Amino acid sequence: MKEPFINLTRGMPPIEVFPVQDLSGCAQAALQRDPAVLLQYGRSPGYKPLREWLSQQYQVGPEQVLVGNSSLEIFSFITQIYLRPGMRAFVESPSYDRAITLLRRSGAQVVGIPLHEDGLDLAVLEQEIKKAAPALIYVIVDFQNPMGTTASLGKRERLAQLAQEYEFWIVEDAPYRALRYTGQELPSLRELAPDCVLHMSSFSKTLAPGLRLGYVVGPADVIAALAKWAVDTYIGPVFPTQGLVYEYCQSGLLAANIEKLKNLYRPRLEATLRALEQHLPGATWTHPEGGFFVGVTLPQGSDIASLVKKADSAGLKLTDGRDFFPNPADGNRFLRIPFCSVKPEEMDEAFARLARLL
Amino acid sequence: MKEPFINLTRGMPPIEVFPVQDLSGCAQAALQRDPAVLLQYGRSPGYKPLREWLSQQYQVGPEQVLVGNSSLEIFSFITQIYLRPGMRAFVESPSYDRAITLLRRSGAQVVGIPLHEDGLDLAVLEQEIKKAAPALIYVIVDFQNPMGTTASLGKRERLAQLAQEYEFWIVEDAPYRALRYTGQELPSLRELAPDCVLHMSSFSKTLAPGLRLGYVVGPADVIAALAKWAVDTYIGPVFPTQGLVYEYCQSGLLAANIEKLKNLYRPRLEATLRALEQHLPGATWTHPEGGFFVGVTLPQGSDIASLVKKADSAGLKLTDGRDFFPNPADGNRFLRIPFCSVKPEEMDEAFARLARLL
Repeated sequence: MKEPFINLTRGMPPIEVFPVQDLSGCAQAALQRDPAVLLQYGRSPGYKPLREWLSQQYQVGPEQVLVGNSSLEIFSFITQIYLRPGMRAFVESPSYDRAITLLRRSGAQVVGIPLHEDGLDLAVLEQEIKKAAPALIYVIVDFQNPMGTTASLGKRERLAQLAQEYEFWIVEDAPYRALRYTGQELPSLRELAPDCVLHMSSFSKTLAPGLRLGYVVGPADVIAALAKWAVDTYIGPVFPTQGLVYEYCQSGLLAANIEKLKNLYRPRLEATLRALEQHLPGATWTHPEGGFFVGVTLPQGSDIASLVKKADSAGLKLTDGRDFFPNPADGNRFLRIPFCSVKPEEMDEAFARLARLL
Repeated sequence: MKEPFINLTRGMPPIEVFPVQDLSGCAQAALQRDPAVLLQYGRSPGYKPLREWLSQQYQVGPEQVLVGNSSLEIFSFITQIYLRPGMRAFVESPSYDRAITLLRRSGAQVVGIPLHEDGLDLAVLEQEIKKAAPALIYVIVDFQNPMGTTASLGKRERLAQLAQEYEFWIVEDAPYRALRYTGQELPSLRELAPDCVLHMSSFSKTLAPGLRLGYVVGPADVIAALAKWAVDTYIGPVFPTQGLVYEYCQSGLLAANIEKLKNLYRPRLEATLRALEQHLPGATWTHPEGGFFVGVTLPQGSDIASLVKKADSAGLKLTDGRDFFPNPADGNRFLRIPFCSVKPEEMDEAFARLARLL
């Protein structure tokens, strides 16, 4: 009898967490309450009540918030406005593969700065800055994708300082920040250096990714430039879903949903770390305090490309870790484990299969 | 007593036409029926049931349809994929100002081809093609924005022929095509030359612009290239609103809504043409058979820039016609009248005020 496939490629919430009844009720309520705004042409930077709600969360003015159709697309706007071919853009190595793709699309020279369990390798970072400061650095300091790591306070402070000193932008992608399972919240880069940081987040991990509802918090003049770019691109982001999310948030439902998610994901993270301990003694891995991912470095001599192929015939779908590295060869032994959508007992079975392959 | 302002700048549906009850019912129904797809990450080219419904309307395969967050943004993808700085892009002169903006953003050299009541000036078009064929031409052959004109069958056929012969893309923007108030429907450019035409449309004029739900119908390989570009940009377009629109369409509500809109807009167009006849004998204007706009050429010696200013203090908001021309000076006497959002009696009053200013 063939065992069922286990999929370890999907960095997405399991579908059973979507609060369908609440969301469909909020969709209807929003359209009934504010149809003239939600159905008419609405302009970037987005639906005003939602921007105001977000601005209260971040304790900034609404002129510092832009809502868009996913934070990824907001990042594409940032790259189109602030990067020109040949400019340098830094990323953590490894980093979110789609961010690297957008940086490359803009013609920027993408420079990977090695990422350790406590954040960027500061020595390499400073060395690269001294060669030539970047136009921007893209980082995920909370529960990084794909590593799961969290930057220490010291490293956050130093990065913020360097951005101020060498005048480059920090794009802080923070979609997982609200999903902390253990440990203490640290200040965001935006809190440390509000004038240098474009802080992006979304409702994809805390509510539902199909909404494609992302936003950025930053200096008012940057938000105005992004809003102009967005108006020229699509006039305004999709409005009815903004109404839906506003209705959901202002009804106070979001905080409870985040608690529910944390209680579901925490044991999945714990099960993953236990399974690693038990089945992969020759590997090393990160110890995330939140988010979606554990980053695994396979034992010496492993080769992720051939492992992905072998795993496929052993009922296990894996992602090729090289995709996350600006220099793909650096990821020859790297495996990203997205634990949120996999039940504890499945995860144990997944690692048992993996151990047999290694 | 100050008279109320009349706004002749807004090329948008009046808010009272939005079928709010149906749309909020459909939003709820869609989320209840297909939550796992509509709330999860969904990929470009879009929600499969909606793409299938559209492909049936256009009698093509679903692989020939891509749904996006507005047809304007789909056009921005087209310009990013198919244009490079210095390439030539043709537009009707005048044309949709936002399309010109996106062409310029891509670095293309924008060439305006004069537009007559029956379509493009073919002599100028052929002359410009012989100088150097464009990478693409952007046209609105049905009820053009801002002119309101419809291209004749002969001119459609000739343009299709030229695109085949000189191998350039035709981007046919057709958001008004379903809103014909008089006369006979003509074949779309896509029907005449399916291999050369990217046919864009949306639900902004037939349902509600806030949905930002646009789509493009074209050759499968172009759709695949656009889908790849879109995935890299935002993974997928917003899904819950696609579910809403699919629910609305497959319930058979769209056709009735379009009939309702035609019955509302037809008398508004007639009132506009009557008011022009009565109040602006020195001007010339187009005679649209559908859509949103009448294009007016003001009497000799008029100057739209100073008229916009004077009108503002006379309780009338006008758009500066120069914005629609690749060469702005060509629009010194041009005024776009968007008639859909203005009631017949208001339109008469608007032209009475305008006549006093001229």
